Amino acid sequence: MKNISILGCTGSIGVNTLDVARRFPDRFRVLALSCGANVDLLEAQAREFNPKVVTVRDKKDAATIKKRLGNGVRVLHGVEGLVEAASLDGVDMVVSSIVGAAGLIPTMAAIESGKDVALANKETLVCAGSLVMDAVKRHGVRLLPVDSEHSAIFQSLKGHRKMDLVRLTLTASGGPFQEYSAEKLKTVKPADALKHPNWEMGKKITIDSATLMNKGLEVIEAKWLFDVELDRISVLVHPQSIIHSMVEFIDGSVIAQLGVPDMRGPISYALGYPGRLQKNIPGLDLAKVARLTFKAPDMEKFPCLSFAFDALKAGGTMPAVLNAANEVAVQAFLEEKIGFTDIPAMIRKVMDLHSPWEPKSVDDIVSADRWARIAAIKLVKK
Amino acid sequence: MKNISILGCTGSIGVNTLDVARRFPDRFRVLALSCGANVDLLEAQAREFNPKVVTVRDKKDAATIKKRLGNGVRVLHGVEGLVEAASLDGVDMVVSSIVGAAGLIPTMAAIESGKDVALANKETLVCAGSLVMDAVKRHGVRLLPVDSEHSAIFQSLKGHRKMDLVRLTLTASGGPFQEYSAEKLKTVKPADALKHPNWEMGKKITIDSATLMNKGLEVIEAKWLFDVELDRISVLVHPQSIIHSMVEFIDGSVIAQLGVPDMRGPISYALGYPGRLQKNIPGLDLAKVARLTFKAPDMEKFPCLSFAFDALKAGGTMPAVLNAANEVAVQAFLEEKIGFTDIPAMIRKVMDLHSPWEPKSVDDIVSADRWARIAAIKLVKK
Repeated sequence: MKNISILGCTGSIGVNTLDVARRFPDRFRVLALSCGANVDLLEAQAREFNPKVVTVRDKKDAATIKKRLGNGVRVLHGVEGLVEAASLDGVDMVVSSIVGAAGLIPTMAAIESGKDVALANKETLVCAGSLVMDAVKRHGVRLLPVDSEHSAIFQSLKGHRKMDLVRLTLTASGGPFQEYSAEKLKTVKPADALKHPNWEMGKKITIDSATLMNKGLEVIEAKWLFDVELDRISVLVHPQSIIHSMVEFIDGSVIAQLGVPDMRGPISYALGYPGRLQKNIPGLDLAKVARLTFKAPDMEKFPCLSFAFDALKAGGTMPAVLNAANEVAVQAFLEEKIGFTDIPAMIRKVMDLHSPWEPKSVDDIVSADRWARIAAIKLVKK
Repeated sequence: MKNISILGCTGSIGVNTLDVARRFPDRFRVLALSCGANVDLLEAQAREFNPKVVTVRDKKDAATIKKRLGNGVRVLHGVEGLVEAASLDGVDMVVSSIVGAAGLIPTMAAIESGKDVALANKETLVCAGSLVMDAVKRHGVRLLPVDSEHSAIFQSLKGHRKMDLVRLTLTASGGPFQEYSAEKLKTVKPADALKHPNWEMGKKITIDSATLMNKGLEVIEAKWLFDVELDRISVLVHPQSIIHSMVEFIDGSVIAQLGVPDMRGPISYALGYPGRLQKNIPGLDLAKVARLTFKAPDMEKFPCLSFAFDALKAGGTMPAVLNAANEVAVQAFLEEKIGFTDIPAMIRKVMDLHSPWEPKSVDDIVSADRWARIAAIKLVKK
């Protein structure tokens, strides 16, 4: 029996994680559930899975949920609630699926309490990769990727010698605007960008997929997760999202992981690790798919991807700044305060304003993140 | 230092094996070389690699090579020579790359002398899979596949739990006649069939690729090598031969091995195992490849593939009979004694004449093989 705590239980990763827990009641027990403000769904989930702790963002929602659920469950809120859910006694694995840099503090809390982490919150590694990986080593926990690309690389590396590895290749659907001209990209509206061709995901990550920033964040995530130099990480546009990513060895042999594009695949892999769980998603039928295509990414039309490489090269606090500026820009785009091509323009400006320094703690990351948000918000207001 | 013996040193696998040995003189030493009748190439190889033993098919060629090489090397011939080369003291790995059922006896000799085997001779497993795998277990040796498909499956399974496996999928280029009508297939000449779209190989295997019998033999080989039931093995036509084969697990995850179609890949993997050797083949550039396509095999147009499934279902001596009938039919086709579509017709007839029985020894296999050859030759003469 694996006892799990889900941070971000009402998002797409959280809901799919509970789907796995529902199908394997003799293998998983849900001890804690945490969400932002979706109290109705949280209530339903709590009634079904009987966690010991539930936690929400705001005090007001905590009061509501407490009234609805009664005394059988501890109800918490805020960052303290998240940290408590992440470090709760008896929890074996924390599923970290909060969106954005907000996931960093509870994820670190989970690691420091000796919990294995199934990581869907890529911003944790983007902002604080070095600190997080140090903590993972120090506490001897497992950090299992839930991003389909990183799960693919993890599965592809398994059983092979790290010393033989020469390259990680992350595949990218390329988002819905691969064929748009630079001019047409300027006219993109949130509704257009929210139609992802292959994956059903939350809003933030869907916009990030359309700008290729998602792939940029994944490059940074991969660098930390697999301890590989930046010049050994490539990105390949593969619109069908069937090959989820691949690794190349010194002998020219490439190992890839493939599957239908369904988040339940990597989620169930991380939850079941080191075993695999019987699928409830369709199998891959390549004869039916018939055709897989590939091309190099266009970093001029989608500069966010190159910014991620730049941020990693600059090092220190720069990736956290890149990420924070992106979060503000995406939110502003979703609120139609800025245009689609203003997203990279804003991020670049904030990065240019920043002189990176070496963070010594999560607090340092939080303050770089805050600085970048303020700088980005100022740009939005302009 | 790995001491190797190469059975079939002047064929395409043999030459490529020596290329690896040439590039890594501090890792491989060639102790024995064996070929059919290409004494000129054998002489050159022997001068370069200084083996202790060389062996050829006929006594006459043995005398020629002995005169040319002088007293520094033992020169042998015939099946005894092959068996000696396969079981020579000090040899760590035998590269078994003789074409056809003739590879069975020396390969068994290698296993029974406790040598690891790099197996390119798929007929060994086709004819005597059960006996060979028993011997492998009994003698605790490694049987490493050199066929690109089986090497791909071997690499894809590595690090994963056998209990999670649900399917092996062998890819097939489909040969040069995928788009031919059944009518046009009848007119195919040896010269047409010898133009393989992707792989540079010997004549026999190139014809087998064109009939899909090669894939059929590989299905049988895979069954024995990976101990998987027949209904868990699929074949997928993939004309670009970039995905060399793949495995599917219970969670729907598929692991595949990819690379440029070059036999030096799987050869170097088998030789270097468990390490990998620095490549001297081009890397895989999927952006340049641009497109991979897939379709189900057409077993009506290419019935040899279905005969292989039938032979495995019938069991016992039937796969050896299938293989022997195929060897005779391919030879007759190459000599323009029969047409292209007569190959499957002849094999079917020989199979229909055979009542399979359980072989207890290599001798039993040899006698079933002989029976089938005689039956097939009679059909050619008709």
